[in-house]
Amino acid sequence: MDAAQLAQFAVQKMLSGDEASRSLGMELKTVGAGTAIVSMKVRKDMVNGHDIAHGGIVFTLADTAFACACNSHNVVNVAQSCSINFTRPALLGDVLTATAVEVTRGRRSGVYDVRVENGDGKLVALFRGQCASLDKPLVEI
Amino acid sequence: MDAAQLAQFAVQKMLSGDEASRSLGMELKTVGAGTAIVSMKVRKDMVNGHDIAHGGIVFTLADTAFACACNSHNVVNVAQSCSINFTRPALLGDVLTATAVEVTRGRRSGVYDVRVENGDGKLVALFRGQCASLDKPLVEI
Amino acid sequence: MDAAQLAQFAVQKMLSGDEASRSLGMELKTVGAGTAIVSMKVRKDMVNGHDIAHGGIVFTLADTAFACACNSHNVVNVAQSCSINFTRPALLGDVLTATAVEVTRGRRSGVYDVRVENGDGKLVALFRGQCASLDKPLVEI
Amino acid sequence: MDAAQLAQFAVQKMLSGDEASRSLGMELKTVGAGTAIVSMKVRKDMVNGHDIAHGGIVFTLADTAFACACNSHNVVNVAQSCSINFTRPALLGDVLTATAVEVTRGRRSGVYDVRVENGDGKLVALFRGQCASLDKPLVEI
Repeated sequence: MDAAQLAQFAVQKMLSGDEASRSLGMELKTVGAGTAIVSMKVRKDMVNGHDIAHGGIVFTLADTAFACACNSHNVVNVAQSCSINFTRPALLGDVLTATAVEVTRGRRSGVYDVRVENGDGKLVALFRGQCASLDKPLVEI
Repeated sequence: MDAAQLAQFAVQKMLSGDEASRSLGMELKTVGAGTAIVSMKVRKDMVNGHDIAHGGIVFTLADTAFACACNSHNVVNVAQSCSINFTRPALLGDVLTATAVEVTRGRRSGVYDVRVENGDGKLVALFRGQCASLDKPLVEI
Repeated sequence: MDAAQLAQFAVQKMLSGDEASRSLGMELKTVGAGTAIVSMKVRKDMVNGHDIAHGGIVFTLADTAFACACNSHNVVNVAQSCSINFTRPALLGDVLTATAVEVTRGRRSGVYDVRVENGDGKLVALFRGQCASLDKPLVEI
Repeated sequence: MDAAQLAQFAVQKMLSGDEASRSLGMELKTVGAGTAIVSMKVRKDMVNGHDIAHGGIVFTLADTAFACACNSHNVVNVAQSCSINFTRPALLGDVLTATAVEVTRGRRSGVYDVRVENGDGKLVALFRGQCASLDKPLVEI
């Protein structure tokens, strides 16, 4: 397996057990070594009274893309700290896309950036996550 | 109405239209001028394959407590940027409590700190949120 | 004046009064509409006992590039919140370069990303800043 | 030596080699196990054209208090990521005080909160730092 195949294999295994992202309707579009794209449609049970998506749900999408990217090398990594800037409301019915890229990755920790965009390609939120490696394989090969 | 009654009135109104926090089973325990406590039980649809709560769901709880606290003066405030540090996993069945306090509040923006604890009072996550005021009432009185 | 000339004019005026960046030996390399590059050599009075630059000094360089970029439209903007991830030590004698880019900019606030690199082009720190507009010109034209 | 004496011993040793904090006139007021207070006067070479302290210098003060607190157990800890919210300008001549407290500390990492106040006790900035342990003693005893 090359790095891209390993990423596919490991991350799909990880997501297969993840009830949280499944129940929110998240879909893994692509995953590679250090990168991932995850999408989600904003449903009625994700919005407030003004039909605007809860910021936490937008964060959850970004956090999922981050988790996919930082576990894509088949080494277990857990989120240590994350920050998010909200730049535009996500609306009921919007299909959001979170694109995660690896900025830097060391032996013990890494930093990943995630952009969340709406269907028009407009920026909804910027997320940055730092993870810590647990130094063990995600899936046995 | 005094400040505490206004907080109750405004925040309960705000939450009554919030499908997202309702669907996650969140419960407003107390709310006052600049403060709020919100709790949530970690359900099966909130965890990953190791029965650990998705970080995004923990964030969503903290973010909801933040929203309650920063809207408690009956002035609409929206989240601009938030950060979270994860310090301990939250497990399936845990009842989490998020306690938000106002650190500072100006005419245009404010900063709020939220601690998320599990049922044993152990720290699960630290959240800090910065909001921007839209300078209009949340509910008409 | 076009946008690039305005950026030059406004930011050079702003920096001309800035004793802090001058005393740290910072140099504006380029500035444009929403972007800026600032460099600084790590001096003896900027390091700790192991000849590693103080994280605060690295932050200060990034923050200066951020200030240049977010004031480049000749509208006064002040930093509201910033975050930094330290990825590699900066050493005595290193010439650091901070490159700021505008991620998003609205009427009231903006978000800027800054990369700090050493002379080998290796990433030293990642900075993200959010600013608030004071809605007044930086310099009268 | 008890924990408080160890903190004093280790942190004073650490600061004695720190040219950066010395050149900025920082003074360690108190240090204990997990806590530290550091003060600094805002000098002419720390301000911009409006006699307001550079945000980076305020950050540097907070970061120094953080470093003292997170190294106070005589285990080397390095800053991984920090965030700061600026709430009020610090002015030329102000004597700023940064108070760092330990929020949580594990085997591999810790989180510390720092408040920076001016001479009137007003909040100037809120800082949160996350450190990683290098798992070796700061000073040999």
